[in-house]
Amino acid sequence: MQGVILENINSPEELKKLPISDLPELALELRHYIVDTLASHPGHLASSLGTVELAIALHYVFNTPDDKIVWDVGHQAYAHKILTGRRDRFPTIRTYGGISGFPRMDESPYDAFGTGHSSTSISAALGMAMASKLQGNTTRQHIAVIGDGSMTGGEAFEALNNASVSKANVLVILNDNGISIDKAVGGLSRYLVNITASPKYNRLKEHVWRKAGGDKKESRSRNFFSKTLSSVKSVLLEGSNFFESLGFRYFGPVDGHDVNHLVEVLAQLKDLKGPRLLHIITKKGKGMELAERNPVVYHAPGQYNAETGERISHHDSNQPLKYQEVFGRTIIELAEQNPRIVGITPAMPTGCSLNLMMERMPDRAFDVGIAEQHAVTFAAGLAAQGMVPFCNIYSSFMQRAFDQVIHDVALQQLHVVLCLDRAGLVGDDGPTHHGTFDMACLRPIPNLTICAPMDEHELRDMMFTAQEEGTGPIVIRYPRGASIHPDWHNAMRHMPIGQGRCLTEGSEVALVTIGHVGNVAAEAVNTLQSKGMNPGHYDMRFVKPLDEKMLDAIAARYKHVVTVEDGCLEGGFGSAVLEYYQQRHAADAAYPVPGMVRLGIPDGFVPHGPVAQLQHDCGFDAPAIVACVEGIVSQNISSAES
Amino acid sequence: MQGVILENINSPEELKKLPISDLPELALELRHYIVDTLASHPGHLASSLGTVELAIALHYVFNTPDDKIVWDVGHQAYAHKILTGRRDRFPTIRTYGGISGFPRMDESPYDAFGTGHSSTSISAALGMAMASKLQGNTTRQHIAVIGDGSMTGGEAFEALNNASVSKANVLVILNDNGISIDKAVGGLSRYLVNITASPKYNRLKEHVWRKAGGDKKESRSRNFFSKTLSSVKSVLLEGSNFFESLGFRYFGPVDGHDVNHLVEVLAQLKDLKGPRLLHIITKKGKGMELAERNPVVYHAPGQYNAETGERISHHDSNQPLKYQEVFGRTIIELAEQNPRIVGITPAMPTGCSLNLMMERMPDRAFDVGIAEQHAVTFAAGLAAQGMVPFCNIYSSFMQRAFDQVIHDVALQQLHVVLCLDRAGLVGDDGPTHHGTFDMACLRPIPNLTICAPMDEHELRDMMFTAQEEGTGPIVIRYPRGASIHPDWHNAMRHMPIGQGRCLTEGSEVALVTIGHVGNVAAEAVNTLQSKGMNPGHYDMRFVKPLDEKMLDAIAARYKHVVTVEDGCLEGGFGSAVLEYYQQRHAADAAYPVPGMVRLGIPDGFVPHGPVAQLQHDCGFDAPAIVACVEGIVSQNISSAES
Repeated sequence: MQGVILENINSPEELKKLPISDLPELALELRHYIVDTLASHPGHLASSLGTVELAIALHYVFNTPDDKIVWDVGHQAYAHKILTGRRDRFPTIRTYGGISGFPRMDESPYDAFGTGHSSTSISAALGMAMASKLQGNTTRQHIAVIGDGSMTGGEAFEALNNASVSKANVLVILNDNGISIDKAVGGLSRYLVNITASPKYNRLKEHVWRKAGGDKKESRSRNFFSKTLSSVKSVLLEGSNFFESLGFRYFGPVDGHDVNHLVEVLAQLKDLKGPRLLHIITKKGKGMELAERNPVVYHAPGQYNAETGERISHHDSNQPLKYQEVFGRTIIELAEQNPRIVGITPAMPTGCSLNLMMERMPDRAFDVGIAEQHAVTFAAGLAAQGMVPFCNIYSSFMQRAFDQVIHDVALQQLHVVLCLDRAGLVGDDGPTHHGTFDMACLRPIPNLTICAPMDEHELRDMMFTAQEEGTGPIVIRYPRGASIHPDWHNAMRHMPIGQGRCLTEGSEVALVTIGHVGNVAAEAVNTLQSKGMNPGHYDMRFVKPLDEKMLDAIAARYKHVVTVEDGCLEGGFGSAVLEYYQQRHAADAAYPVPGMVRLGIPDGFVPHGPVAQLQHDCGFDAPAIVACVEGIVSQNISSAES
Repeated sequence: MQGVILENINSPEELKKLPISDLPELALELRHYIVDTLASHPGHLASSLGTVELAIALHYVFNTPDDKIVWDVGHQAYAHKILTGRRDRFPTIRTYGGISGFPRMDESPYDAFGTGHSSTSISAALGMAMASKLQGNTTRQHIAVIGDGSMTGGEAFEALNNASVSKANVLVILNDNGISIDKAVGGLSRYLVNITASPKYNRLKEHVWRKAGGDKKESRSRNFFSKTLSSVKSVLLEGSNFFESLGFRYFGPVDGHDVNHLVEVLAQLKDLKGPRLLHIITKKGKGMELAERNPVVYHAPGQYNAETGERISHHDSNQPLKYQEVFGRTIIELAEQNPRIVGITPAMPTGCSLNLMMERMPDRAFDVGIAEQHAVTFAAGLAAQGMVPFCNIYSSFMQRAFDQVIHDVALQQLHVVLCLDRAGLVGDDGPTHHGTFDMACLRPIPNLTICAPMDEHELRDMMFTAQEEGTGPIVIRYPRGASIHPDWHNAMRHMPIGQGRCLTEGSEVALVTIGHVGNVAAEAVNTLQSKGMNPGHYDMRFVKPLDEKMLDAIAARYKHVVTVEDGCLEGGFGSAVLEYYQQRHAADAAYPVPGMVRLGIPDGFVPHGPVAQLQHDCGFDAPAIVACVEGIVSQNISSAES
């Protein structure tokens, strides 16, 4: 149901032909179309509902795609996608081969810059603006749309600080809904609430005015106060407003759901030059009652009833818990026993289930905002004073704190537990969110222990072990989604650091796996056994330190090793095993080095789609593992025959 | 010459026994001791001269080491080191086996947190403060000393934003000298100048007061204005000052060189709770005329005359240029031909020599402040609009922008040229500054080209090639220090991407090297030849893509490959070669895989010291390479004999 206005909008050019009076109706139609579509094609609902009017107004006023719009984080850009030639393809969003859930430069010329991680938009828009300036284009506009949550990310501040001295043509639109994915936190967030309500300014204004009027009725005095007031205002708004203090011209706040007013305001701002910031107030989930009431749940609600908005539960109480839930419950269990444990999340309490601890132990669980760098150094500071922080960061967001892991945690051997959720292929969110680099980029860091559980019981044992005295810096990586056991709650026990386990003793070929993908390999082992083959299977558990004894035993027993990892092949887990065997061989030419095949993610960004499909494409789903082992075995037979 | 007061100060306890009237004299003595010592033992001079009074006042007032001081970046902490039991060891600073140029937790209990990279101090202090709070310690103080330059780093903002809601006992001391290593840039810096001078506030205050007095002499009116003024002030200082807007109580600015006044102010601040910020004004290079006049040069001036301050030049016009100078001159040469080229540095214009371009082409060269994340996304934005940005970042600081390289540059295949200066072991600055992880952590990133020049002519050819149309994202890594040719200025030419070169054809053992360390290998080749051996030597030039044809030719000709790299062994260049041979062997069992040895930096943080010494310790200086090849050859002979 696209609506009679919307169904004729195939591009911003057609949008511009509409009378302004049609825009509110178009907003309604657009909103209905998003709600209807996402009911059965899950996506990021609430953020995109909040920016419907803004997307319309921007494309109505600005000359896109020549003017550039950068949508920070990008999951707020659905209305933008629908208005820019992707209306009919919208139901394919986030599906394999369909359009992306985020802006992508290779998807549309209207997607001026790809986004997925937060707080990049001002930097990118500033770069574009500087390019236009150098190219002599003085009219092109460069617009960054950024939420108040994203504004807390350090990169956004770095960009504000730099933009203000550049005189470049940048318009920052601060989309302030008081929420990121969870509730926005921090001083800036509180400040935005203050200037929105402007109590101090309003109180002062009233006070001065009343006093002036009350004391004497002389117009001269009024005039004086009026002047004073305007001095006060200028101090307030030109020198000391947070954004003005960084050199931006600040406008707003204005109602981000009044599309006609937005059009007027943007048209005025269009004619100004230099760095400007427009503060708009929106409601996340706008127009869908349940989403407005619970924007955290409706950030990405999954399937729901398009009429009522009620979520369609696929919950089955016998289903295994998600890894994140096991993390969320287990950290509480551990923290109840160990008073040194605290929890940290950079703005993902619901996503990583630390919200459970935040409710139960509010003093010991911290949402530090979209601030991965700070989260890790903050954890290091806590550890320096004897606490044991569990810092939970999605694998792909940990890339933001890579230096802090090296410089603040590992170098100082501080006892920080880094839990990397969403490690490996994540599915529908695609290449910006796949957590494929962590093993390769963390493995070279000295002093780190790196492990990955094959199931939730291993996760719990690793968490138990991680918090024990003297463990030092440790990384636990685990994937998005469900684990495997109906009963997640094993009795936790110490897991010896750097010790793997043998799941299946076999002959000729050993599968050596790390983490949850070991279950895919186990499936392959079953298939291979049913075909009469006899592969071994080893769950290494630790990427660093490697279980060298086990690798020696494997080398002694098997001619071939096939490593399987849900991570990039360059420098990853398989390479660690390869390096070990190379070193052993270099030290002792008689060492029986096995032939090796490494399965995992080849060199290339992986698109969005179902995880199983992506594992198939990358060549490490169960059939691929089976085919790999069969190939080795048959080659051996033929070489033995020849 | 330690001075009569200083020579008796072996700890803060002894400092506290001094009458406050002795402190100015102590400051003089301390300053002289730093100036005298660094004259012959080079270090970070100007920053530490700026914090002499602050270091004295902090240790005089606070109960260190129980109270915690975190010195941001750390090179401002020399006076702190001298006062905390390291006075006599101070001349060993930055020497092999001596004390570090940065605070290190393992060096002294007074070094509450290690620093070397900027903008971490508030996060760390906040973590410590939170730990104290949870441990029931309500009196312990947690102090972050941070420069105005470091304050522009995103992580500092993330921490300010988070600290303000924590109610934790954090005192941030903003050491404002208007300069980081080069001149501080950006909106915040300009803002600090404004509030220091407070022109608006002062003007307003004066205006209101004069008007009140001028219009009528009534005390009631004065009283009213005084009230109004205090409203204005409260708006200014409690709501709208940049730091107050983030929830900090702001104090200052005060003179950071008036040690007695600093003691008074700190004593007052000590009794307050919650997040506080004290703004002090200092002079970088204070007390040494030449350093005050030229703080950029005297940031780390090398050796100088202790009396006059004049630098002792070791310059020899026949000496090869530093790599950084070749970069700085070459980018201008290229930019003069290619109008699309721009230069970017995050606050290191002098360190990377982009200052040359900033002087020559001020519109096309940008110092974006201490802001690595922003620098890379800003570059991506420029590239998205057709420019060719050369973004120059020290290798170890690039770790701060790891996510941006992946998410903004590589994923979008944007034509950004990342020049990583200070790649490999850097020497005296030690583990925080060694650029040892770049090859390992960047190699897994798809779409990237990664290369390293063996000399300045290769650097110029790589820069030439990097800016050519269609090159895509490319990384050029090169070391700190001098290159090798007396004449740096070759005629630049295209260097085929992914193509190495053979330097010496040999037999049995091939040395396969990447980058400048190839010169160390070439020295080893000479020695080996003089001993009658005949090793081959190949300069791979590209870490990614590898020259597979050359590797095949090497495998066909040699039995053994020894890779040499100035980078970490885990997942690094040698592993790339190893992976290639493994894949060839997996695909074709008949492929003649050579035996391999990988030389480079083993798993562990490398301390500070002369590069040659560190290369020796890591096992890849020329004698180590010679010994490695000899070992292989003799082993082969013995295995052939047996």
